Amino acid sequence: MTYDLWYWDGIPGRGEFVRLALEAGGIPYRECARQPGADEGTLVADLSSARKHPPFAPPYLVAGKMTLAQTANILLFLGEKHGLAPESLEGRLWVNQLQLTIADMVAEAHDTHHPISASEYYEDQKVEAKRRARSFREERMPKFLGYFERVLDGPQAWLAGGKRWTYVDLSLFHLVDGLLYAFPKRMATLAIRYPNVMALHARVAALAELQPYFESGRRLPFGEGIFRQYRELDAA
Amino acid sequence: MTYDLWYWDGIPGRGEFVRLALEAGGIPYRECARQPGADEGTLVADLSSARKHPPFAPPYLVAGKMTLAQTANILLFLGEKHGLAPESLEGRLWVNQLQLTIADMVAEAHDTHHPISASEYYEDQKVEAKRRARSFREERMPKFLGYFERVLDGPQAWLAGGKRWTYVDLSLFHLVDGLLYAFPKRMATLAIRYPNVMALHARVAALAELQPYFESGRRLPFGEGIFRQYRELDAA
Repeated sequence: MTYDLWYWDGIPGRGEFVRLALEAGGIPYRECARQPGADEGTLVADLSSARKHPPFAPPYLVAGKMTLAQTANILLFLGEKHGLAPESLEGRLWVNQLQLTIADMVAEAHDTHHPISASEYYEDQKVEAKRRARSFREERMPKFLGYFERVLDGPQAWLAGGKRWTYVDLSLFHLVDGLLYAFPKRMATLAIRYPNVMALHARVAALAELQPYFESGRRLPFGEGIFRQYRELDAA
Repeated sequence: MTYDLWYWDGIPGRGEFVRLALEAGGIPYRECARQPGADEGTLVADLSSARKHPPFAPPYLVAGKMTLAQTANILLFLGEKHGLAPESLEGRLWVNQLQLTIADMVAEAHDTHHPISASEYYEDQKVEAKRRARSFREERMPKFLGYFERVLDGPQAWLAGGKRWTYVDLSLFHLVDGLLYAFPKRMATLAIRYPNVMALHARVAALAELQPYFESGRRLPFGEGIFRQYRELDAA
């Protein structure tokens, strides 16, 4: 079965966490909003079409008769179905727990540039963004990254233990990638403190399973999505 | 097996979503941070104790040798194990998806009074809170509540369909309860638009399974947690 993945075109966004799992797992999927002739209206129309289980927002995955939304929920499904997560219940719940913690940090990273409203311009909440970004850089980044550092047992470890990556390793890679883009100065300071996290980032970047995707040009660059490069929001 | 639930004492917080499932399911648990002699230090010490799968933050549930954190993840486990969710994979993923959407709204409700930093005083982010709360009231509340209204098929429906409540109905009840507390004026306006949501709130409040809990005095009132009553953040 080929899955249908729906997500806004033009940004990696939350869709990228799903994409990385599909790509690394060698799972066939269609990127619906990037098909020839598709535009933003195509996604908006599909999102509001009648479904048994309507999504609140993209990304969502259509798997036969089933529609699944919420990034962590889609990954929970893919992880179990395609062997991208541990087999035990305990292992699967642990990976889900870590994924939800990543989702929390992703939401906070987004709010550094939109602390007041996602529907207002950045320029209209720049002052507030500066304050929120400072608290994110100084308190939240060390707290989250320090947590993942402790979970990782060493520079050769995967988050769930075991000998093979699981989907949450791909997600942590993408989160760190986004932080390196949005907060290059801060990450230069922090990277030294979190060698296991940085080693995991490098190992996922080098995964043989992901090279065809990275080389395809399909992996969209960061820009106007969750992770943005506003110099005034970064500091060492 | 009696579960150990760890959450900050004194506020309902995110622990309440877990508590409602345990209580409505008739599942034995210990409220660890409220045992005689326990205080905040007891939880802090337990949180930082060595564990195979450390939580990032409370709530967390100790189930024998397993420690589970992240509210939606704990509920996923309890739902499957204790029949508080549909039996089918599709049904369980749907309930999880809805739970994650509730979690998103809960995080946004919190940020109305702490849009800059959770570790700074409300008084020091009051101006920003007013702007964020306005956007939450005017855009986000209708968007989220309108979504749940559409998911509910009528005033007698449960979120997952079927004849019996699942854990996500309890969570929507608590979310609406919190909104009624924090935004009474806004909810008075919106309640008329979302009769299915309000009917579900009333039906959960009347569930026979929950009456012993409600009458026990153990259900903590809202106050200094996620849902707060700041009059300046509310408006019709």
